[in-house]
Amino acid sequence: MKKVSDVLTTNSIGKVIPTIVNGTQAIPYKGVGKHRPSGRKFAPIISSCIDFPSDGNKLVPSLKESLIQAGLKDGMVISTHHHFRNGDIIAVQIFDIAAELGIKNLVWFPSASFECHSPLIKYLEDGTIHHIEGSMNGQLGRFTSQGKMKGVGVLRSHGGRYQAIQDGEIEIDIAVIAAPTADSFGNANGVHGSTACGLLGFALGDSQYANKVIVVTDNLIPFPCLPWQIQGNYVDYVVKVDKIGIPEKIISGTTEITKSPDRLFLAELTAKFCEQVGIIRDGFSFQAGAGGTALSIGIYFAEMLRNKGMKARFARGGSNKYLVNMLNEDLVEYILDGQTFDLDGVKSMRNNPRHVNTSPFTSYNYHGKGNFAQLLDVVILGATEVDVNFNANVVTHSDGVLLHGIGGWQNCLFAKCTILPIPLFRDRIPVIRDEVTTICGPGELIDVIVTERGIAINPLRTDLLERVKGSGLPIKTIHELKQEAEKICGIPTQANFEDEIVAVVKWVDGTIIDSIRKVKF
Amino acid sequence: MKKVSDVLTTNSIGKVIPTIVNGTQAIPYKGVGKHRPSGRKFAPIISSCIDFPSDGNKLVPSLKESLIQAGLKDGMVISTHHHFRNGDIIAVQIFDIAAELGIKNLVWFPSASFECHSPLIKYLEDGTIHHIEGSMNGQLGRFTSQGKMKGVGVLRSHGGRYQAIQDGEIEIDIAVIAAPTADSFGNANGVHGSTACGLLGFALGDSQYANKVIVVTDNLIPFPCLPWQIQGNYVDYVVKVDKIGIPEKIISGTTEITKSPDRLFLAELTAKFCEQVGIIRDGFSFQAGAGGTALSIGIYFAEMLRNKGMKARFARGGSNKYLVNMLNEDLVEYILDGQTFDLDGVKSMRNNPRHVNTSPFTSYNYHGKGNFAQLLDVVILGATEVDVNFNANVVTHSDGVLLHGIGGWQNCLFAKCTILPIPLFRDRIPVIRDEVTTICGPGELIDVIVTERGIAINPLRTDLLERVKGSGLPIKTIHELKQEAEKICGIPTQANFEDEIVAVVKWVDGTIIDSIRKVKF
Repeated sequence: MKKVSDVLTTNSIGKVIPTIVNGTQAIPYKGVGKHRPSGRKFAPIISSCIDFPSDGNKLVPSLKESLIQAGLKDGMVISTHHHFRNGDIIAVQIFDIAAELGIKNLVWFPSASFECHSPLIKYLEDGTIHHIEGSMNGQLGRFTSQGKMKGVGVLRSHGGRYQAIQDGEIEIDIAVIAAPTADSFGNANGVHGSTACGLLGFALGDSQYANKVIVVTDNLIPFPCLPWQIQGNYVDYVVKVDKIGIPEKIISGTTEITKSPDRLFLAELTAKFCEQVGIIRDGFSFQAGAGGTALSIGIYFAEMLRNKGMKARFARGGSNKYLVNMLNEDLVEYILDGQTFDLDGVKSMRNNPRHVNTSPFTSYNYHGKGNFAQLLDVVILGATEVDVNFNANVVTHSDGVLLHGIGGWQNCLFAKCTILPIPLFRDRIPVIRDEVTTICGPGELIDVIVTERGIAINPLRTDLLERVKGSGLPIKTIHELKQEAEKICGIPTQANFEDEIVAVVKWVDGTIIDSIRKVKF
Repeated sequence: MKKVSDVLTTNSIGKVIPTIVNGTQAIPYKGVGKHRPSGRKFAPIISSCIDFPSDGNKLVPSLKESLIQAGLKDGMVISTHHHFRNGDIIAVQIFDIAAELGIKNLVWFPSASFECHSPLIKYLEDGTIHHIEGSMNGQLGRFTSQGKMKGVGVLRSHGGRYQAIQDGEIEIDIAVIAAPTADSFGNANGVHGSTACGLLGFALGDSQYANKVIVVTDNLIPFPCLPWQIQGNYVDYVVKVDKIGIPEKIISGTTEITKSPDRLFLAELTAKFCEQVGIIRDGFSFQAGAGGTALSIGIYFAEMLRNKGMKARFARGGSNKYLVNMLNEDLVEYILDGQTFDLDGVKSMRNNPRHVNTSPFTSYNYHGKGNFAQLLDVVILGATEVDVNFNANVVTHSDGVLLHGIGGWQNCLFAKCTILPIPLFRDRIPVIRDEVTTICGPGELIDVIVTERGIAINPLRTDLLERVKGSGLPIKTIHELKQEAEKICGIPTQANFEDEIVAVVKWVDGTIIDSIRKVKF
């Protein structure tokens, strides 16, 4: 199969994209809120209790045996979740087994990838894995950008992944769900057990829609396993193994608070902006991403709430010790958590009923009857690049190399106010550009850019521009910020691409917003 | 539309059933575990956030307005839940509105009906409602048995109702979910608020699969409403009203413990049988139905566990004060509850994390990958009649009149041991018959009949027969029990039926196990 068709097309924002991706017809991005889906959700095959053990015991002796019983064969789509982040050990084991069995051309459909998945490069090379639909981080990103992957990488947001599963855009043949605690019926959760990772929300869609579902656990308990974050009624097989992950490695580089004075200044300025425009009020809601700067903003929010005697109604996680402290101090009434970023988050979710697990279905799915992200008063996110039209990039660096996944970033843009606190330059490369290398989020959804040398408000947000008047905040235009950076670092060079498309970026509605090309190294 | 086709057929147990019911092809019952479904689950239309309020606020001013916005029109299927049991007030309001709007031929698809729904008879008479798919209790049952309903009643178990929704056997146009607490996004639960009814599990399938979902609440709280037993991501409209139900009326006649010495004897004998055959052991599990006798058995189980220093791993509810006491005394580790039968149950579910809400999906759906009912060591149920082949009836009385729904009764038959404690006769009419008036459960799934004059064990259960040898328990054959009853009461007359089929009884797999005919009054 060719990666993409020879026929290319141009989407509504002028990006050249393929018409066919990995053999499937692609829909070009049409603009925010412009693509209305037609048709019906994916309809899984009807099961029957006839075909399951009458005593409800679905244990099989090994992961290999479960994969064989699930009918593992060439070309299948295999899904995994990333709640262990860099401590996942199951995904590599799956493909070790597939390679041992001589299976070829699998599609790996993780909810995200990390450096711990670099061993999969050998399976991308030997044809065990055809391509990845999910994030291609670190070494996997570099491999993809080098044009070495057989198929085209497909990048989706967390909500877009649920949407793709729900809508049948991708059909999961086998979902493997690493579960810190489970019973032999297949009920499973992430809050209990020695490898507790918090929740299993990223595997929810997989459990609901995959043809075969395997739960792998290292803590098998008698029925009922509570809470049943994954419901056994969706599960085909349960496997008991010695260890499913390394919870200490849940903490990756992005989940520690920044110590850089520059970043702390950025965080403080962002918080001050929020205060000035009236976002910080009793009962407000916020989400801060996983970056060090974003985390630090929580600290400033906490201080402001404490001083004002107010509390936030809810915060969306990625939870971490800082957010948990706010919950415990009653500065936040609820944490609605999609992913625990550290073990304090895990413990809090286990013990505090106001720390609630969510899923990409509740939080992010654009093809639902609304979602939680749109209810947020403010969301604070990172970006690798922003352009003068407020478009932003989170998946490639300015050298064009694919190095990050989208996460919930695109989905969060639907909050009532989206703020990107970013340094004006990184390694002497300006972050504000005439045009971003890869567009992940359209500028009309990005409201504010906060840099260490000033704040740029999207001209569409006349209300915010009005509210900062006379505030003393360093308000500038985005062009002014760009010029300042270029005055210091010079005008940046463009990434050096070849023609070949190696990955595509989907928008929250399943359309293609941009293509990523092979990099000339 | 004619109620049924003129063409009849005979199913695998010799029951004459229609080939078409309310215009839809019917599948004849084939035997336990003999009908394997083909095809795929029902696929709801894909929604988009485009079509929902960007701030997530789905409030509309009134139930009437929400029904109009949902597109209420002739012939639609309207669903409601029965967690308020005899205290429901919303179902009647819906059809008051429909009648006012001149809508005709609706199908009412409740999860159960009660005496409080008798006012709907006028809408069955005037054509607002064409027929009911659900239980037809009390006056509605009598009305149906008189042949007065325009369509054919369709009786399903709780699990069968979920199966029918999931499989697309019935397509719900509008689901109306009365919710004791909700937020304006549509998240809802039954545990909080002045009309708390415990849980909303019977409405889960409706929320997942209905075309339009309306949440009606009398306790609107700021987002997030937790726990979200119903997820707002499935909800189209939210309506705030003054009152949604009368929680005191949740307690109906079937949820008080018996005071009759005969029934208490039955209960004690049943418990003794369970002890003798080894069912009462550390970590066992049980479910007792809603009848007074069944409730009393829990009291005996508690005493046995207390004396032995053992505890049950879980009990399935219908919860009530007796079961809650067992949980609080730590005689039961978990209550997995499908429906709270009294306000003690409601309170316990709200406050005790070991009292967990379930749904017909987790507990009963035969077209899932297993369900909870099959995991039970013992289930204790009622019946209106049993025959010499252990077949049982729960929907009609011996006079042929339809007076009860199936509830979870059919689904529970898949437990490891099914016991029916029943009086040998009621109102001088023997309960054990040559053939039941209506067959709801096949004898091969019914293991033990306990009467005040002896215990009959299904000859298929040679293991149980072995274990009672020399126990001193009054073991008899079912024929002996039948003869004893007839010696006292005489041979009962048969119900007096006309030819016309007024309702059908579905098995857990969607096939038709029996028909119910018009009664000659």
